[in-house]
Amino acid sequence: MKKIGILGTGIVGSTIGSKLTALGYEVKMGSRTANNTKAAEWVKANGKSATQGTFADAAAYGEIIFNCTKGAYSPEAIKIAGAATLAGKILIDISNPLDFSKGMPPTLIPALSNTHSLGEAIQQLLPQTSVVKTLNIVNCEVMVDAAKCGGDATMFLAGNDSSSKKEAELILKQFGWKDIIDLGNITHSRSTEMMLLIWLSTTMVTKNRYIGFKILR
Amino acid sequence: MKKIGILGTGIVGSTIGSKLTALGYEVKMGSRTANNTKAAEWVKANGKSATQGTFADAAAYGEIIFNCTKGAYSPEAIKIAGAATLAGKILIDISNPLDFSKGMPPTLIPALSNTHSLGEAIQQLLPQTSVVKTLNIVNCEVMVDAAKCGGDATMFLAGNDSSSKKEAELILKQFGWKDIIDLGNITHSRSTEMMLLIWLSTTMVTKNRYIGFKILR
Repeated sequence: MKKIGILGTGIVGSTIGSKLTALGYEVKMGSRTANNTKAAEWVKANGKSATQGTFADAAAYGEIIFNCTKGAYSPEAIKIAGAATLAGKILIDISNPLDFSKGMPPTLIPALSNTHSLGEAIQQLLPQTSVVKTLNIVNCEVMVDAAKCGGDATMFLAGNDSSSKKEAELILKQFGWKDIIDLGNITHSRSTEMMLLIWLSTTMVTKNRYIGFKILR
Repeated sequence: MKKIGILGTGIVGSTIGSKLTALGYEVKMGSRTANNTKAAEWVKANGKSATQGTFADAAAYGEIIFNCTKGAYSPEAIKIAGAATLAGKILIDISNPLDFSKGMPPTLIPALSNTHSLGEAIQQLLPQTSVVKTLNIVNCEVMVDAAKCGGDATMFLAGNDSSSKKEAELILKQFGWKDIIDLGNITHSRSTEMMLLIWLSTTMVTKNRYIGFKILR
């Protein structure tokens, strides 16, 4: 099994990391500091296959890297992790370019929506890395357990490299996703990131965070 | 049955208009000119309950008005129809703020996405009209026949007035929509209009325009 690096110690990173260790993967969680307390708690809770370090440590460790940092901070985290360190690897980007500057609910960062996206911005920062955008359209508990939204929901993939998308798909399947649509290259990150607003609107009115989107066809 | 006015003589307007006349509604299709040839063809094909006129004629005729003009042109069409003429009525806005200026596939008009929307812009132009945003997330053939996307897809409503949304819902049900989610006020137009990109991405890769979105919950 491929070694996994995770960038980000929040609820998304720890949920993804815990599921991956439960599946038998070795996972290193990276943060700004090598001894981050949230990462230390996660390591303690997830046994010997869970370790921690800096962003650069996690990037060096993983063959596949998950970007689980907050979208507005992701470009900086990616730069700290290091383009050279991430070269030749797969980076699975599950973050969204949320803009909380106008209050709640958030919108998207204007410069990273509609005609651009966070997925593309990260790919531009990492020309020698294969960025795959996926999972960003659901709550993190649904990300790792597709059945939690009560049905055979659809998950999307976008990225420039087919074999990298196949690697990501293997993990998606272990997370319970069966209906997976490969949208094409990384520009299709725009499409899935823009689903954030309907996700927010729908979860607010249904008072249910565990929703999923099914493409009927 | 309430009289219907339709703004726009394109494929969307004629599809909506034909379905409504088939359901027994009296429908007047409006365009820039009173004797538009596409509207005349539509009138000829749809019997005595189908008539045509200017935008202002259709606005005056209908108790419920469907905006089926192209999104970029909608504000102008609405102004021609006339805010005073539309006062006290329900305007069902099914258009999207498509921007074709950067080529294909289209994006959204930046000033009308993310932090604003076409639905809101139309409501601002028509302070005495109740604007209801709906149907804009599917192909027009699916709009009037929900079963065409092969399942019990979800349709959204957004608008400031509950009784107007109930009127719109009555029509949605006659179009075959069963799973209808009222998202709240007109600002939620942003959410459904931003689904345009995932609609485009998905229809391109599945080569199927008759898709629908189901919210699993």
